[in-house]
Amino acid sequence: MPSQSPIVVVAVDSFKGSLAAPAATDAIARGVLRALPHAQVRARPMADGGEGTLDALLAASPGSRRRDVATCGATGAPIQAPVGRLADGEGVVEIAQIVGLTDAAAGTSDVRARDTRGVGRVLRALIDDGCRAIAIGLGGSSTNDGGAGLLAELGVRFLDAEGRAVRPTPEGLGTLASVDASGLDARLGSVRLTIMSDVDNPLTGMRGATAIFGPQKGVAAADVDALDRTLMHYASRVEAALGRHAASERGAGAAGGLGFALQLLGARFASGAETVADMNGLDAALDGADWAITGEGRSDAQTLMLKAPSIVARRARARGVPVALLSGAIDGTALPALDAHFDGCFALPPGPASLADSLANARDWLDDRAFAMTRLRFCARR
Amino acid sequence: MPSQSPIVVVAVDSFKGSLAAPAATDAIARGVLRALPHAQVRARPMADGGEGTLDALLAASPGSRRRDVATCGATGAPIQAPVGRLADGEGVVEIAQIVGLTDAAAGTSDVRARDTRGVGRVLRALIDDGCRAIAIGLGGSSTNDGGAGLLAELGVRFLDAEGRAVRPTPEGLGTLASVDASGLDARLGSVRLTIMSDVDNPLTGMRGATAIFGPQKGVAAADVDALDRTLMHYASRVEAALGRHAASERGAGAAGGLGFALQLLGARFASGAETVADMNGLDAALDGADWAITGEGRSDAQTLMLKAPSIVARRARARGVPVALLSGAIDGTALPALDAHFDGCFALPPGPASLADSLANARDWLDDRAFAMTRLRFCARR
Repeated sequence: MPSQSPIVVVAVDSFKGSLAAPAATDAIARGVLRALPHAQVRARPMADGGEGTLDALLAASPGSRRRDVATCGATGAPIQAPVGRLADGEGVVEIAQIVGLTDAAAGTSDVRARDTRGVGRVLRALIDDGCRAIAIGLGGSSTNDGGAGLLAELGVRFLDAEGRAVRPTPEGLGTLASVDASGLDARLGSVRLTIMSDVDNPLTGMRGATAIFGPQKGVAAADVDALDRTLMHYASRVEAALGRHAASERGAGAAGGLGFALQLLGARFASGAETVADMNGLDAALDGADWAITGEGRSDAQTLMLKAPSIVARRARARGVPVALLSGAIDGTALPALDAHFDGCFALPPGPASLADSLANARDWLDDRAFAMTRLRFCARR
Repeated sequence: MPSQSPIVVVAVDSFKGSLAAPAATDAIARGVLRALPHAQVRARPMADGGEGTLDALLAASPGSRRRDVATCGATGAPIQAPVGRLADGEGVVEIAQIVGLTDAAAGTSDVRARDTRGVGRVLRALIDDGCRAIAIGLGGSSTNDGGAGLLAELGVRFLDAEGRAVRPTPEGLGTLASVDASGLDARLGSVRLTIMSDVDNPLTGMRGATAIFGPQKGVAAADVDALDRTLMHYASRVEAALGRHAASERGAGAAGGLGFALQLLGARFASGAETVADMNGLDAALDGADWAITGEGRSDAQTLMLKAPSIVARRARARGVPVALLSGAIDGTALPALDAHFDGCFALPPGPASLADSLANARDWLDDRAFAMTRLRFCARR
C-alpha cells in the first residue's frame, strides 16, 4: 500500500518556447497535489547550462544575489545582462542571456558577423568585482566564433598578414594570420572557471560546433565546411600563442566554440545539469521519495546525453526511486532508448494538436497530465 | 507490492477511422505485455450498438454463426449484409452494416431520399429463418426516416391524401396523410426484439434525432425544423394506427428514429455497451483483476452517457478495480467530468500531431502508451 503522504520529486527542465523550469515545475506540482492532496512535493527546477540556468542556480542558493551588467550582445548592440553571485562569492553567467539564440537582434543578423565579446566583457566585470570563481552556463548561443570575441575582450589580439587587427567574428577570422596573447588579462590565472554545458562535442570536424549546431544558427549547408576550416586555423594559432591545447576537449564545441576558448583559459568542463543538481539539492530531495517526475520541451536521443532528464533519472534510480518522463513531445524513434531510462514516458497533448497549441497550453496540459499520471501511479493496488 | 502476475483487463471500443475494437485491444495488450511479460491480459473488446457490435458479440459467443443476407442499403441499392445467430438462436443485426453512415452510396445521396427498408428486409429474413429473438445494434446510421422504411418492409402502408402509397423516406413522408397497419407481419407478435444503443434521445424536439444527429447525416441547418415536424406528424399517424406510443421513449431517436419504429413493434431498449459487456463476460474478467484499461477514438462529455468506456469504468469500480482511460483524443472541457470516473485519462499522441497522423499511427501509439502506463502503474513502490 502507498504511504499516506507520498513524497514526489518534480525536477523538470524548461519547456522551451512556453514555460521556464520553475513554472513548469509549479504546473506539474499542481496536478500532483490535485490527485494527492496529502503528497509532499519536492520541487527542484532543473537546467542544463542553457537558458534558465542562472535562475535555477539563484533559486537553489540562499543568500545569492543577482545584478545587471552593461555589455553587448552578439551583434555588438549594448545590452544589460543579468549575472549572479552565490553566497560563497562564485559568479554565475548564463551566455544565453548575452549572445542568446532567442535574441531578436541576433536573429536578423548574419552568424558570420556575430561574436562573443559581450561574454568577455561580463567576465571582466565580475573579475573587476573581485570574483575569483565563475561558473558559465553554455547553451542557447547564436554565435560560432570559437570564443574569439571572449578572448579579444580579455586581451588577446588577432592580426592579419599585415599585422592589422581582425574582428573576432567568423568573417574576420577568415584573414587571421597571427595571434598575440601577451596582453591577456593576468588576473585570469587566479580565477577558477567552470563551464556548465549539455554538449560534449569537440570544436571542429564532423561532430564539431559548426557541423552540429551551425545550421540552427543560420550557417548555410554550403558554408559549413569553410567555416569549420576557419575555426580549425584559428584554433591552431591561438593554441600556439597560449601554449595550450583545447580544441579536442570534451565540450570545446559548446556555444559555438566558447567551450574551447574557456578551456584554453583553464576552465574545467562540467555537465550543466549535474552542476544544477549538485547545487539544488536533488539528491537530498530524492532520498526517501516515492516517485520522481522529470521532463523537458522535447525528448529525443539527445536527452540521454547530458540533458537534465537523464541526470535526474540516473540519480533517482541510484536511490531506487521510480522516475517518469513528461515532455512536450517524445521522438518516437528514441522511445526504445528512453524507455530503458524512465519508468514510463508521457507527452503533453490530449489529442491531435499543433505545436502552437501545445506551447500555448503547456501550463494546463502539464497540470492535467501530471494529475492523470499521479492517479495512475498511486491508485489503489489490490 | 504488486502480485507477480498482475491481471489486466483490456476492454476498449473501436478507435473510429483507424482500428476496430479487437485490433485496438491487441495493440494495448502488446504494450502491457512488453512492460510486464508475466501479466495476465484479459481482452474484452467492447462496442456500444454501433459499428463493431456484431463482431464483438459473435467473438464473445462460442457456437455463434455469421451469414450474409441479401437486402438493400439506405439508397435502395442491393447489398449483402452480415447477420449473426448466437448459440441460443438469437439473431444479431448491426444496422451500421446495412444503412451505415460510412456507406459510400449513402454518402453521395440526399438524406431526404434515404430509408431503412433494408433493415426491415433483414429482420424479415431472420424471422423467415425461424428466429424468435433479435438484438439490433443501432448506431452509425445514415438515415433519418423515423424507421418508416423498416415498418413499410414489415407490412405497414403509408398513404397520401389521395390514398396513394408514399415512399417511406423523409421526402415521401412530407405528404403522409394516413397509415394502414393492417398488413403488419403478424409473426412480429412472437418475436422478442432488443435495441442496443448508446443514445437515449427521444424521436423529435430539441434533443430529437433530427436536431442532434441530423447535421452529421447531411441535414442542412435550415431544414432541421421542417424535417423534425415531418417526423412528428408521421409519429402521430403511425402511433394511432398501431395503438401504441413510443416517440418519447428513451432511445426513440436512435438511428434516425429506428429506435422509435422498433419500440412501436415492442422492442425493449438496452444500452449497447451493457449488452456487449453482459455477453462478453466483462464482469468475470474484472473479478480479481489488478487494473483495467478502457478507451475509444475520442472521449468527451458523451462518453459518460452510455458509451463503452463509462460502462467498463462503472463495472470495474464496482469490483474495486482501478480503471484508466486511453483514447485517441480527450476533450479538455470534459476532462474534469471524465476524471471523476477514471483513474487517469491518457491520449495517444506522443507530441504535436495531426489527426491524420494519429489515425495512421494508432496501432503503434496504443502499444507505446499502454507500455508507458503499465510501467507507471506497476513500477516498484517503496
